[in-house]
Amino acid sequence: MTLQAHALDLAASAVLPDGFDPGFADSPAARECRGGETLVRFTPKYADAARDVRVHWRLEGAANAPVVVVQGGISADRNALPGENIEGWWHGIAGDGRAIDTRCCRVLSIDWIECRDLGDALAVDTRDQAAALAALLDALGIERIHAYVGSSYGAMVGLAFAATHPQRVTRLVAIAGAHRAHPLSIALRNIQREIVRLGARGGDRAAGLALARRLAMTTYRSEREFAERCSGEPVFADGRFHFAEEPWLCASGARFVERFDGERYLALSESIDLHAVAPESIRVPTTLVGISSDRVVPLADLCELQRRCGASATLHVIESRYGHDGFLKEDAQIGVILVEVLALAGGAR
Amino acid sequence: MTLQAHALDLAASAVLPDGFDPGFADSPAARECRGGETLVRFTPKYADAARDVRVHWRLEGAANAPVVVVQGGISADRNALPGENIEGWWHGIAGDGRAIDTRCCRVLSIDWIECRDLGDALAVDTRDQAAALAALLDALGIERIHAYVGSSYGAMVGLAFAATHPQRVTRLVAIAGAHRAHPLSIALRNIQREIVRLGARGGDRAAGLALARRLAMTTYRSEREFAERCSGEPVFADGRFHFAEEPWLCASGARFVERFDGERYLALSESIDLHAVAPESIRVPTTLVGISSDRVVPLADLCELQRRCGASATLHVIESRYGHDGFLKEDAQIGVILVEVLALAGGAR
Repeated sequence: MTLQAHALDLAASAVLPDGFDPGFADSPAARECRGGETLVRFTPKYADAARDVRVHWRLEGAANAPVVVVQGGISADRNALPGENIEGWWHGIAGDGRAIDTRCCRVLSIDWIECRDLGDALAVDTRDQAAALAALLDALGIERIHAYVGSSYGAMVGLAFAATHPQRVTRLVAIAGAHRAHPLSIALRNIQREIVRLGARGGDRAAGLALARRLAMTTYRSEREFAERCSGEPVFADGRFHFAEEPWLCASGARFVERFDGERYLALSESIDLHAVAPESIRVPTTLVGISSDRVVPLADLCELQRRCGASATLHVIESRYGHDGFLKEDAQIGVILVEVLALAGGAR
Repeated sequence: MTLQAHALDLAASAVLPDGFDPGFADSPAARECRGGETLVRFTPKYADAARDVRVHWRLEGAANAPVVVVQGGISADRNALPGENIEGWWHGIAGDGRAIDTRCCRVLSIDWIECRDLGDALAVDTRDQAAALAALLDALGIERIHAYVGSSYGAMVGLAFAATHPQRVTRLVAIAGAHRAHPLSIALRNIQREIVRLGARGGDRAAGLALARRLAMTTYRSEREFAERCSGEPVFADGRFHFAEEPWLCASGARFVERFDGERYLALSESIDLHAVAPESIRVPTTLVGISSDRVVPLADLCELQRRCGASATLHVIESRYGHDGFLKEDAQIGVILVEVLALAGGAR
């Protein structure tokens, strides 16, 4: 087993042969692969009564193995893992032979709920996402999860989950997310929402949403990446000059419009800005991961969270040229931290 | 005279009694105060022939004293100095008894020209502003100016002026402006322009321009100022939550719409992004001033400009909580630098 574990490479794409046995007694090779839509019931923060809420989820990994909840940013979905015709938004981190090794754990992820899922609630809070997750765990008969690993908005929801359901989770890993949004980041997301509304009022919803995404991209990436990627001369066309960053950012905006709609964007963007968890209320051992070049979540806020956390908390800082999006790019650095923190039996390294 | 000069306080509002004599022989107390509209002729960079261009200017200070050109950001005008019913956008720096002391120099400022002033030119370049200024100096019979002091866009135009008309200027002070715009700042201004266009296409020009200004404000000010100013709880009203920074930024947007129009904004914002001066082409002794918290003009770009400058160049860095807008706020720190660099006979300190 030691040799096998040693042979696993975090950076390699591990495809296992049929009948592969990871070789540890309590983690049979049998695979569990489920998913679906479950009706749960809770009272949203910005509503005055309980209601039924539909939660879309996916659970996959070694049968009966410990459960690791994996959640990403507001544009992520329940497909963190790769699958048939699914790339998996965190395929470099979660999967067979990866840092979150699905040969010795089961990964559970949900689609974010939004206002529309909450009936007439005024907004959707990170506590609502946490309540939906807890209710889903009840429905699936999972009493306690081995870990919650969340990035960006997923980290915020993880902090809300640890504050409101400490008995359900053994350890929390929060990457690029803090106990509250920074006021400058709030201002920039608020402007993004106003752009979406300006487009909608003027009859051009797609243009508004694409432009909002373009603005979001300037906050997700680092100054250095812009300097390195955008060095071409401006080109005059269609009555104005076009600058070197336009193809990159416009393509990102166009892709976003294809898979997202304005109402969902408004709800989840606002949810980030409403997020507020008192660090002292977090009673679960917590690992925080910050990214040096992240302009959305300043390291100072993670330091404050670490200092004030109600349970033991450690802060790791990784270097990246990708800013906030480092959580989607720095597989090797994040993988090393996760392998150590998760300590999955027989896991990689 | 030494005593008098010593008694002047950069931070104080100096109002001189009638008949006050600054006390140095070659700078008579007689006042020169002129201004107007002058037709000049040059070939714009993005046009193929010369044309007549109207330049609005103001010249004020001690009669026959050396001329200091003072230019600010894209929203500044020819009124750097205070006057009747005029606050003067740089009244803390330029005026009687100030660092740019109008008792021993004359301050000349122009309104920025824009595309509309250039006939059918595709865009307005910082070199066009420099050409307009040089042509105006001809018209006013001023062969050589004692100094050009520019901030933000005004600093960029100063660099263009020093590169194209080195024989007209003895020293250049460029505050919070570099030889080119940073690609991330270009991306953010490009989005501001798209917001203006989105509003115009949807029939709401004012909303687009105000929102673009709101976005610009997030780049002008520092993360720290946002953290300090915007700590209130969100408030639900009119179907959505309102966040702590909204009153501040929306008021700024509303004021901007009252004094600016979209077309001028598009032209001058684009002009910043088109700006490109080879540092090696600058043949005038240059003083660069950077602001530690400036997110529009990173210090690294000013360091590169200093390193590559074709003449002697020094770089000062001032500390500020106001980010890029520090050039409008840090009168004391900027004043000390200007007094030393300008070395006006009998000037303050």
